[in-house]
Amino acid sequence: MSDTQKIRFGILGCAEIARKLSRAITLSPLATLYAIGSRSLQKATTFAASNNFPPSAKIYGSYEDVLNDPNVDAVYVPLPTSLHVKWAVLAAEKKKHVLLEKPVALNVGEFDVILDACEKNGVQLMDSTMWMHHPRATKMKEFLSDANKFGELKSMNAIFTFAADPDFLENDIRVKPDLDALGALGDAGWYCARSILWAADFNLPKSVTALPGTVFNKAGVIISCGAALQWEDGKVATFHCSFLANLTMSITASGTKEKQASFKTATESGFTELVTGWLPFRGVAHTAPIVVPPLLPLPSKHTVMIELPQEALMVTEFSRLVKSIKNDGAVAEKKWPTLSRKTQCVLDAVKTSIDKGGEPVILS
Amino acid sequence: MSDTQKIRFGILGCAEIARKLSRAITLSPLATLYAIGSRSLQKATTFAASNNFPPSAKIYGSYEDVLNDPNVDAVYVPLPTSLHVKWAVLAAEKKKHVLLEKPVALNVGEFDVILDACEKNGVQLMDSTMWMHHPRATKMKEFLSDANKFGELKSMNAIFTFAADPDFLENDIRVKPDLDALGALGDAGWYCARSILWAADFNLPKSVTALPGTVFNKAGVIISCGAALQWEDGKVATFHCSFLANLTMSITASGTKEKQASFKTATESGFTELVTGWLPFRGVAHTAPIVVPPLLPLPSKHTVMIELPQEALMVTEFSRLVKSIKNDGAVAEKKWPTLSRKTQCVLDAVKTSIDKGGEPVILS
Repeated sequence: MSDTQKIRFGILGCAEIARKLSRAITLSPLATLYAIGSRSLQKATTFAASNNFPPSAKIYGSYEDVLNDPNVDAVYVPLPTSLHVKWAVLAAEKKKHVLLEKPVALNVGEFDVILDACEKNGVQLMDSTMWMHHPRATKMKEFLSDANKFGELKSMNAIFTFAADPDFLENDIRVKPDLDALGALGDAGWYCARSILWAADFNLPKSVTALPGTVFNKAGVIISCGAALQWEDGKVATFHCSFLANLTMSITASGTKEKQASFKTATESGFTELVTGWLPFRGVAHTAPIVVPPLLPLPSKHTVMIELPQEALMVTEFSRLVKSIKNDGAVAEKKWPTLSRKTQCVLDAVKTSIDKGGEPVILS
Repeated sequence: MSDTQKIRFGILGCAEIARKLSRAITLSPLATLYAIGSRSLQKATTFAASNNFPPSAKIYGSYEDVLNDPNVDAVYVPLPTSLHVKWAVLAAEKKKHVLLEKPVALNVGEFDVILDACEKNGVQLMDSTMWMHHPRATKMKEFLSDANKFGELKSMNAIFTFAADPDFLENDIRVKPDLDALGALGDAGWYCARSILWAADFNLPKSVTALPGTVFNKAGVIISCGAALQWEDGKVATFHCSFLANLTMSITASGTKEKQASFKTATESGFTELVTGWLPFRGVAHTAPIVVPPLLPLPSKHTVMIELPQEALMVTEFSRLVKSIKNDGAVAEKKWPTLSRKTQCVLDAVKTSIDKGGEPVILS
């Protein structure tokens, strides 16, 4: 595809995560880096230079300038969560499609303002939850949906933790009440809530209960918490998210049938694996004869190969939707903002339950 | 060791699990199958014949007869939980050492009666939690205790579920209110509580809260439940136990340092593996150059080789203690009943929290 046909991205701000997305845009066959805006022109210039922006890329000293550039098709918004509503709405009003970092907002009310603006202006909205775009997610879902192999989903546990260093815990925007007030819940907890909802076919639970043990920093921002979710049909889930424990990203789902699915990701950078069924036996030796109970089929392990890292697949899917709207008059795909909203609903409920000392919150 | 020096075991009842323990006793160099008692002499005879009892073994038509045999050193008690207090106390009074199936009792009050009888009569009491005796448990504990590698323990999640068939759900003693009133909590939940306590150096949590979603059968017995535990120092844990989901046995522990430990067992029969650190990367291919963030050391996997299955190691450890008491005048080892009691404390707290609709229960 010639560069003129690619979706032209503008990036709002020079957040660390924007480096990864810049690379993803470069890798995607449907997208191109077109503009970067920062409150500091110097920072924007440095960012563009160190992230393979093409020489023709526009460097702006403000976010507004990016939104005012008529050649920008779409913006990526990695700004602190408290700024999402302002800039995503403005972007939509300027007819820019919006790829929005998670958590999408501080609460569902704010997200609905963004959603409304995007709908009114006919622009695509998608949150930047990368793993959803890895084909392993589709494979996993096929397995979880297989009534013969997996059966009915009964329980899930999701963990997303990382051990933030002292500098992060002091200075990162994710621990600042005026920037990312949801803290670890909005950041790591987003992935937990999303993966649980994903496994549960995006049916919202009927109740959400914060677990005891929420940890706050001095400013009152959550840095570690957990929740229990319960569905009308009896399904249950728990999750734990934290800035205080070693990097762990996992979801374990148990169904009624003879296999189990779990899914682990070792880094955020595309080195991923899909594990279904049992881990292989590792040759524990017995000198005595052992009767193996006929409990389980042999384990299986599946690896899904990808041509591009998941974040580039995400950019490509987003760009595909934008191109349909731009070139073919399609309407924006509602699936993605709907998933964003449901995820935010769960986070809101966890936050409310924490605020109420662990009372269950009933979702309507 | 000559057979006359081995600890002579009597088995009370012909429970299915007693087949596994009979084999373990046969495999253990310190133990020998000496007697089996059942309310049906015919069942006892069949059991002995099909479980490699030596021709000299005593076959009794009652449990009392086993306890009255002066040559029986120790008894294994796989009876329904509601019968534990009667038969374990009687065994102790007859100076028989007691290897007791889990859950050790219906509640701590009952267990204390057993404990008191064992202490008064100078007999060893140990519960039959097999995995504790696998050397992998020691290896894992070394890792979890390594301040440099693992750091401080922050969170744990344990899962023990299995998909019981309709016959089990209708007829097994573990779903009968008069036999095993704790149901899945006493059975699968025992392993969850024990493994969490084990990881937490057997410090009791300060609070235990049942999770929403407890499932009862028609008779009011728990067949699926979960709990959240919280310690004074901020550590947290969750567990889920169920008769309704596919066989899953896992504990995941997260510490502050750069590694993570998880431990999975595929069957109860000794085919086990120890996983520390990250699972190996499984070669997800990228055609584009990938920058690997310097997040993690390379993964490692450890396999612990054993000469005997863990249940035989358990019998051997129990027999070693019994021999010390019998031959060397040693006093009974308090460690094992103490661990039993703490585990039972957690189960009691979960049960109380369930009965109180999910209120946190504070442990003193």
